[in-house]
Amino acid sequence: MPDNRPLAISAPAPRTLDLIFTPETLKDLHRRYRIVEADPEDIAGLGDDVLGNAHYIIGQPPLDHATLRRMSQLKAILNVESNLINNMPYEVLFERGIHVVTTGQVFAEPVAELGLAMALNIARGVVDADLSFREGRELWGGDGNRSARLLSGSEIGIIGFGDLGKALNRVLSGFRAKIRVFDPWMPASILRDNGVEPASLETVLGESDFVFVVASVTSENEGFLGEKAFARMRPGAAFILLSRAGVVDFEALMAAVASGHIVAASDVFPEEPLPLDHPVRRLPGFLRSAHRAGALDSAFKKMGDMVLEDMDLMDRGLPPMRCKRAERETVARMRSKPVTMN
Amino acid sequence: MPDNRPLAISAPAPRTLDLIFTPETLKDLHRRYRIVEADPEDIAGLGDDVLGNAHYIIGQPPLDHATLRRMSQLKAILNVESNLINNMPYEVLFERGIHVVTTGQVFAEPVAELGLAMALNIARGVVDADLSFREGRELWGGDGNRSARLLSGSEIGIIGFGDLGKALNRVLSGFRAKIRVFDPWMPASILRDNGVEPASLETVLGESDFVFVVASVTSENEGFLGEKAFARMRPGAAFILLSRAGVVDFEALMAAVASGHIVAASDVFPEEPLPLDHPVRRLPGFLRSAHRAGALDSAFKKMGDMVLEDMDLMDRGLPPMRCKRAERETVARMRSKPVTMN
Amino acid sequence: MPDNRPLAISAPAPRTLDLIFTPETLKDLHRRYRIVEADPEDIAGLGDDVLGNAHYIIGQPPLDHATLRRMSQLKAILNVESNLINNMPYEVLFERGIHVVTTGQVFAEPVAELGLAMALNIARGVVDADLSFREGRELWGGDGNRSARLLSGSEIGIIGFGDLGKALNRVLSGFRAKIRVFDPWMPASILRDNGVEPASLETVLGESDFVFVVASVTSENEGFLGEKAFARMRPGAAFILLSRAGVVDFEALMAAVASGHIVAASDVFPEEPLPLDHPVRRLPGFLRSAHRAGALDSAFKKMGDMVLEDMDLMDRGLPPMRCKRAERETVARMRSKPVTMN
Amino acid sequence: MPDNRPLAISAPAPRTLDLIFTPETLKDLHRRYRIVEADPEDIAGLGDDVLGNAHYIIGQPPLDHATLRRMSQLKAILNVESNLINNMPYEVLFERGIHVVTTGQVFAEPVAELGLAMALNIARGVVDADLSFREGRELWGGDGNRSARLLSGSEIGIIGFGDLGKALNRVLSGFRAKIRVFDPWMPASILRDNGVEPASLETVLGESDFVFVVASVTSENEGFLGEKAFARMRPGAAFILLSRAGVVDFEALMAAVASGHIVAASDVFPEEPLPLDHPVRRLPGFLRSAHRAGALDSAFKKMGDMVLEDMDLMDRGLPPMRCKRAERETVARMRSKPVTMN
Repeated sequence: MPDNRPLAISAPAPRTLDLIFTPETLKDLHRRYRIVEADPEDIAGLGDDVLGNAHYIIGQPPLDHATLRRMSQLKAILNVESNLINNMPYEVLFERGIHVVTTGQVFAEPVAELGLAMALNIARGVVDADLSFREGRELWGGDGNRSARLLSGSEIGIIGFGDLGKALNRVLSGFRAKIRVFDPWMPASILRDNGVEPASLETVLGESDFVFVVASVTSENEGFLGEKAFARMRPGAAFILLSRAGVVDFEALMAAVASGHIVAASDVFPEEPLPLDHPVRRLPGFLRSAHRAGALDSAFKKMGDMVLEDMDLMDRGLPPMRCKRAERETVARMRSKPVTMN
Repeated sequence: MPDNRPLAISAPAPRTLDLIFTPETLKDLHRRYRIVEADPEDIAGLGDDVLGNAHYIIGQPPLDHATLRRMSQLKAILNVESNLINNMPYEVLFERGIHVVTTGQVFAEPVAELGLAMALNIARGVVDADLSFREGRELWGGDGNRSARLLSGSEIGIIGFGDLGKALNRVLSGFRAKIRVFDPWMPASILRDNGVEPASLETVLGESDFVFVVASVTSENEGFLGEKAFARMRPGAAFILLSRAGVVDFEALMAAVASGHIVAASDVFPEEPLPLDHPVRRLPGFLRSAHRAGALDSAFKKMGDMVLEDMDLMDRGLPPMRCKRAERETVARMRSKPVTMN
Repeated sequence: MPDNRPLAISAPAPRTLDLIFTPETLKDLHRRYRIVEADPEDIAGLGDDVLGNAHYIIGQPPLDHATLRRMSQLKAILNVESNLINNMPYEVLFERGIHVVTTGQVFAEPVAELGLAMALNIARGVVDADLSFREGRELWGGDGNRSARLLSGSEIGIIGFGDLGKALNRVLSGFRAKIRVFDPWMPASILRDNGVEPASLETVLGESDFVFVVASVTSENEGFLGEKAFARMRPGAAFILLSRAGVVDFEALMAAVASGHIVAASDVFPEEPLPLDHPVRRLPGFLRSAHRAGALDSAFKKMGDMVLEDMDLMDRGLPPMRCKRAERETVARMRSKPVTMN
Repeated sequence: MPDNRPLAISAPAPRTLDLIFTPETLKDLHRRYRIVEADPEDIAGLGDDVLGNAHYIIGQPPLDHATLRRMSQLKAILNVESNLINNMPYEVLFERGIHVVTTGQVFAEPVAELGLAMALNIARGVVDADLSFREGRELWGGDGNRSARLLSGSEIGIIGFGDLGKALNRVLSGFRAKIRVFDPWMPASILRDNGVEPASLETVLGESDFVFVVASVTSENEGFLGEKAFARMRPGAAFILLSRAGVVDFEALMAAVASGHIVAASDVFPEEPLPLDHPVRRLPGFLRSAHRAGALDSAFKKMGDMVLEDMDLMDRGLPPMRCKRAERETVARMRSKPVTMN
């Protein structure tokens, strides 16, 4: 009896199938697809019976022109690393209509929740309150609230309105805050449809009590948030960095916090891991998290769900809808540093 | 020219007019009312020209039958302490239709925000992550997320659905969580109208990932959350105490946390301030806040707004709507310990 | 064996128990209460064993001082007509702490839905489009849309923000409209908490595309919407009357519609039923409904639910929360014409 | 001085620039682009200076291979008819990365509002109530509400969850309804993210009080809603057809209404205009609208806004985001009958 299951090449490193699928969905994957596990560094070494029949690649292994030519049935590359790496001829893929999709959306919700946690922590001094309590020097009631403030009714700025920005907007929905967004890649009307106000970078920086940065690094915006940007912020305002350290001038950020002008929180750092003697480790007014915002097990498991949903659509001759598609125009610009760990 | 402004006796201790009014609203108060500042311990000592003309008392000073009889124009006592104290003949006030109103609602939003901050902190280990980062022993990425989890999509229980519960429900609205509420004083249909599911105490304890306690202490529910209640909770679930320590058996709560069965956060403690050697100070899995949830300056200032709005209604022959009215049925039961500080 | 069920006198005319209870909830009522059905015109004729033991009256029968004195256990009068009638000594009831509650809230949702139906009908000409289609003179596509417009993104005014106004605000929540409210009985901050903008009557009339009137008639606002009010409205704006005809000068309303200045819809009329030759019957630009907005069977059945929920609270020594309480200050002003039919 | 404005060919028939742009946005268009108005039937007749420099085509004129080859700078075809017509070699466009986008989304909001208007009309009998009132045979109060019901708390089914379905879901958001969606092209998780429940066609038909059909006609679903589908519906349920008549067996729909099993409303018909003697014109229980749901002037004007926003993105090297892109996989299936009028 012939095996009619569509063939999928599995090369998800640095992820593993066990990381991105639950035992149940992994069973489902195997039931519906013929899975060929491959060494990502040697896709070309697979036989033509595999390459010529493969509908999908789960992963983002290096691919050259010759190998791609042998893959006549290929419908999609499902990149589960979530960054687009410069290791395959994207132009050929676009021409042939082979979808390249990424699953980074799974991180939006966890990152948004940590971002909100950071904002509330800063607003209420939760970390220091707990520490001082441990040490018996806590201040009670109003005495402990000298710099406390509310998110409710505040003015909030979001820089970048991709999946992360949208998720952040959603977890902020119960706070009756005025939310302004700077995103030069996003038409104003889409921002308005999402209930936020399109604004310039200057306005977002200058008229917010809390500024969240969720913009990706592109070849164009590296370090675009520097000394001037921080100077423009309201005294005492909070700067919360959730996307990539590359978009800020980190030295300038630390200086703005050290001077007392603003307070800050960050999940990302110029080097990861960070040297033990890095001054941000002891900087008062700075809340630190070691690139933990997105990497929840539940987020990784959602990757598998997304892959299955989109392969199901493509099996039926439909385009993928769940994952995010690489775009011809931006694929070259969207390249962040690949992750090496989960 | 006669002074037609309604007369209000000011005796807001432990608050002060400067605490509960902004400079602007205080000016407004004086413009619209003849304010007689009085010693709360000697309202009886005021002359009949004051007592006989007073429409309002701002504060909750002790009042006896004789004094009340002299106050023939009294419309309302605007209690800005927010607890009802056993220092006036409430039955007489109810009979005569003199409103007794409290302004505790101002604390709902700040408490709800701190409650959410605590839940997110527990879910993501924010305090310990920052501490370990300071000390150079942070874990990066997924390694630091072993016990991390999301509020989004979780099951949440709320015990008590007064102003606090409603505010909490509102700040949780962006999380797509299933929210169950136990409140024996609240008709089920009102809970449903608020988009939450009415549930028994057992269900709320046993089927939640996060349990928020925002119930007031009454003469009937003292210590109703004890060993059995904590045992019923899901392993690893979070217990977040925001109202009064009196509703829990604090020893049992600490034991449940110490055993690793649950994690907890609390803004209130059996004694405040707490002895320096109290074991909760060092209890891992417990996040502490020194009764700081509500006492924000912005909350106190809202009291003044509420007082002004309700006096305006009563000036026009309408009942107060902004503050919360004491109820004949529950006034005796609702007596918490008065606060002595702001 | 003694019957420990609390006693309730049933005198719900013009309603009936069968109208306001489902078979199931009626069974529940009888299971939990000893129900004595009484002639509303002769409550005084009941024996002292009934009067002296009655905890509740379901209905709003005439009551005099002497009868009330015989009812020493009375906790509440549950008025299911929903208007407060001048047939009992309310002052005595307030003094004794006997609650007088009404169930009119059940009509809020049906009235709001009909109000929205009317607004959408006017905006899109639904009635005339169907009529012209029946008669073969319909206009297709854009040709039939010369005066069509959207609610989405429009400016909406609501006059009155009681249960009806709140329900209307809720069904309008998906339309991204700017909603302004005029309600002189309601503090501005409560309106803001509901997400609407407090505004003067002039602003609501002059800056709305749709004006909804859901204000009750009081002794003070009879006919307050007259010629000047309609003149102030935007040309082509819609006036939708949902509460009582008494709040408008109906002749002036018809004139404003006849002149083409505004369009209108109404569920209520100066006389009900209306004479066959009344000119509003044939007035173009006017959408008519024969006082049908609230009187849905499902609404009446909800009355029974509310009565049961509040009696349950009072059985347990708590104040009623589900029904609306009459207020000492406003009981005299809130008297609309009683209904004589359901 | 050279004209650096990007060149756009204008061939929007059956629309016109004046239909889809306001005077202001038209001015903006001309300010930012060199507009060459062209005969859609003779794009090939344009000189190479035009064709070779054109970045955009506003419209959907017939294009052949040879003409396309002459257009080396072409970035996008902005189809303002909103249906994809079989008049250009889409495969070539996809290969070359020339975007084909449609602006049909502008109709989503107006169609959703009319759909809700129809549902509320059916639920409350608004048309017949007004007619009977005109004729002096109206029924007052509850007598006129024998078949009246609420949307609030009802069960609602939506077939198709593209832009229309999403807009419908939004205007229904204030009704606390349970909304189930059947859309085989849409991953279940996206439906859940939108707050609706994914369901089979059978469930949507069989467990709804109101069924809205907003699915496009494809080569595969023609007439898929026929006798069996209507038989499966709840007695008295409402069937509201908003997309294309082609998805239903119209005779079977009329029969189901004529039998009294269901009630219905439709904006679309098997022939448009419809013969004067078509039986649907007089069918009781059927609400008719002459393909007026979307064709509002405000909708057409939004097309121009969308075109401008997407050209702005593409000018800056970004992909279009506001309009909807044609998809390689579905372009052939998505072909509805072109419109010939606006």
